[in-house]
Amino acid sequence: MSLEEIIGSLAAVLTTTSFLPQAVHVLRTRDTQAISLTMYTLFTVGITLWGVYGLMTNQPSIIAANGITVVLAGLILCLKIRDVLAAKRKAGA
Amino acid sequence: MSLEEIIGSLAAVLTTTSFLPQAVHVLRTRDTQAISLTMYTLFTVGITLWGVYGLMTNQPSIIAANGITVVLAGLILCLKIRDVLAAKRKAGA
Repeated sequence: MSLEEIIGSLAAVLTTTSFLPQAVHVLRTRDTQAISLTMYTLFTVGITLWGVYGLMTNQPSIIAANGITVVLAGLILCLKIRDVLAAKRKAGA
Repeated sequence: MSLEEIIGSLAAVLTTTSFLPQAVHVLRTRDTQAISLTMYTLFTVGITLWGVYGLMTNQPSIIAANGITVVLAGLILCLKIRDVLAAKRKAGA
């Protein structure tokens, strides 16, 4: 394995796994106030497209990394949407 | 431009720009409570390594995309660290 491959792999592992502590944080505290809805919408769509790109170009590492991230980012997005809808219902009540 | 290249480029634009609304959100509200320190530490180091990988393999698009993201993610990380330190000082006072 070349130095480039080692650095690229380490980068992929770090950026993929980084969403796990954020998902755990949001699940544990149930607080999504400081989370940006726009960020997680754009990011989840973007990561899904990366997965599609990996499927189309047949690159298993891209499919795997983005498959994991889309689950974690999608979970954070769902919890944020739930809170936004609950706040709207409260404001309307 | 092939369909794969269009999807890959769109994915890169979305995942890169997604951190802009999160940075704006945190700057505007000054609220980092729901932001995970571990996530932004791992992510910022990971994105920096992606930039190094881009430099070593001479891929301008990887350097550009990760250069933008490291500034935005680094800014969010700095604001989170500031709040964590402030909370520690408060707890110790």
